[in-house]
Amino acid sequence: MAHKKNTTPGTISKIQELRKQEISTDTLTQGIFEGNKALLAKAITLLESTNPVHFEKANTVIEKCLTRPNSSIRLGITGVPGVGKSSFIEALGTLLTSKGKKVAVLAVDPTSSLSKGSILGDKTRMQSLSKDPNAFIRPSPSGSSLGGVAQKTRESIILCEAAGYDVILVETVGVGQSEIAVHSMVDFFLLLKLSGAGDELQGIKRGIMEMADAIAINKADGDNLERAKLAATEFSRALHLYPPKANGWVPKVFKCSATENKGIQEIWNMIEDFVGQNRKNGHFIKNRQLQNRNWFLQTVDELIKQFFHQKESFNKAQKKMLKAIDENKISPFYAAKVLLEDITKEL
Amino acid sequence: MAHKKNTTPGTISKIQELRKQEISTDTLTQGIFEGNKALLAKAITLLESTNPVHFEKANTVIEKCLTRPNSSIRLGITGVPGVGKSSFIEALGTLLTSKGKKVAVLAVDPTSSLSKGSILGDKTRMQSLSKDPNAFIRPSPSGSSLGGVAQKTRESIILCEAAGYDVILVETVGVGQSEIAVHSMVDFFLLLKLSGAGDELQGIKRGIMEMADAIAINKADGDNLERAKLAATEFSRALHLYPPKANGWVPKVFKCSATENKGIQEIWNMIEDFVGQNRKNGHFIKNRQLQNRNWFLQTVDELIKQFFHQKESFNKAQKKMLKAIDENKISPFYAAKVLLEDITKEL
Repeated sequence: MAHKKNTTPGTISKIQELRKQEISTDTLTQGIFEGNKALLAKAITLLESTNPVHFEKANTVIEKCLTRPNSSIRLGITGVPGVGKSSFIEALGTLLTSKGKKVAVLAVDPTSSLSKGSILGDKTRMQSLSKDPNAFIRPSPSGSSLGGVAQKTRESIILCEAAGYDVILVETVGVGQSEIAVHSMVDFFLLLKLSGAGDELQGIKRGIMEMADAIAINKADGDNLERAKLAATEFSRALHLYPPKANGWVPKVFKCSATENKGIQEIWNMIEDFVGQNRKNGHFIKNRQLQNRNWFLQTVDELIKQFFHQKESFNKAQKKMLKAIDENKISPFYAAKVLLEDITKEL
Repeated sequence: MAHKKNTTPGTISKIQELRKQEISTDTLTQGIFEGNKALLAKAITLLESTNPVHFEKANTVIEKCLTRPNSSIRLGITGVPGVGKSSFIEALGTLLTSKGKKVAVLAVDPTSSLSKGSILGDKTRMQSLSKDPNAFIRPSPSGSSLGGVAQKTRESIILCEAAGYDVILVETVGVGQSEIAVHSMVDFFLLLKLSGAGDELQGIKRGIMEMADAIAINKADGDNLERAKLAATEFSRALHLYPPKANGWVPKVFKCSATENKGIQEIWNMIEDFVGQNRKNGHFIKNRQLQNRNWFLQTVDELIKQFFHQKESFNKAQKKMLKAIDENKISPFYAAKVLLEDITKEL
């Protein structure tokens, strides 16, 4: 066989060896602590892997990263497609890095495995930020369940924080349940909106309005400016309909234009006010603890379910019951009770 | 001690005896089969009880009721407060009993324990129906969780069907998750709406529109008539945006006035068309089987959770983990994994 110069069989096997040879958790952790983007990305890839060996390894890294003190701000950003999330993140991120802050951009998009990355998949949408040495952009992990996708993003936040990122932006699409997931992993939740034509409140899900710590009406420029002002008034009024938040924060409404770089500084000032206020009154840390507890409890319930559903005897018994239910021989509730009694006796 | 005539100590203890003496499941079942409203109500009270003895008894009755053939129609009705649900049910129910049908009215309102029955609690809202010998009205069971409330209503349906009720109307409030619960227990789902002033689609949750087999615009009378017509057109248009249903049904839009008794017959005709069509193409029974299967699977998962959460060792270990999480010593996900491994080893 002919080989090109420098690629003798020996060299090839050495490269293969090197590829196979996995980076140790110590190397990974050290790399993250030093702010090495490549190793940070590698660690995130590990935690996104479905391979159990990788899972164990990723957890070791996460445990180590957890011990590293940081004073990050986690900021969730949502809005329907077309609202200008990417331009907003580009504008805000660039503002922050210009102030010497390190910015990580993550995403939660459970549809990304289908749509091949509807958000953040394409770094060209954040052209200057993606080239910024102080920015780290990572597309949404793919996964079949929102829970899985969200968990991976949640853990990626920890790694980014250990790598010294001061502000973690978590983007999500303004449709479905993903807002709830992102809201449960951030300190501040920002809803991006567009001004409409007299239908300012149309189509907003009550729940998302209620979660928002602020609403920013984007594309408030040119012909749109007047409408944006109207929309801002409408939203302010609507927000007053909600009960006050436990932390005492009154949600604010802003106008901005990400493409014209207007209003971005004001929004960041407000977020800093929020963080300052909440650190002072103890709600900042309280909220993070509560979030961690909820993530834990939800995961426990998920694993409990898996524990049973992995058992062959359980699945067999369940199938039998389903047949009896189809034939109207037993009530679904009673069938469940009998199944559980039978299966827990076996344990 | 002085006693009134006929209430000698002997009589009193006999009455007390009788009260304590619980009605046998055979008596209850037989009573239900004979259409005895008092015994039907008693059986529903049993299944709503949190006493495990009552639970067992109720299940025996339900099993027996399940075997009784019937050809009921289960109809879910939702709409925001003020849309006129009670008047609509009064009008539809009266129409049906006038046709010789027996009508049961149930409700799912998880807020009823707080609001003391915001729906159906007050029978005076259905004055003629509540006096109708062929109608049975039962307010929403109270309960802290929607799941519990819904389960009880689901089982009450079975008892009502065994008691010979031909049409089961299940009312719910047009806010929150209760629509999903009711949708999962009925054959046909009707959304009541009001015509607005140019904001016909405002505030409707997409998910609820998608679930509806028909939309009825109520209070289409007097000055409202023109607006109702407009709203009907808007809704028809909006419904066309949704993908076709698996059963081939195209959702319809109607105008009606429950107080003026207009349009009610047309809506019932449509429901009968729907049922006829779906019985023919097999989707009627298919849907019920699917609903039963889902109820079973959900209940199994709920009971699995309970099985662990009742263990003292589990709760102890969980508390320990929560402390470690609060102190940032372990990631919530890894903590959950370790907890499950420890606890399942013990089983």
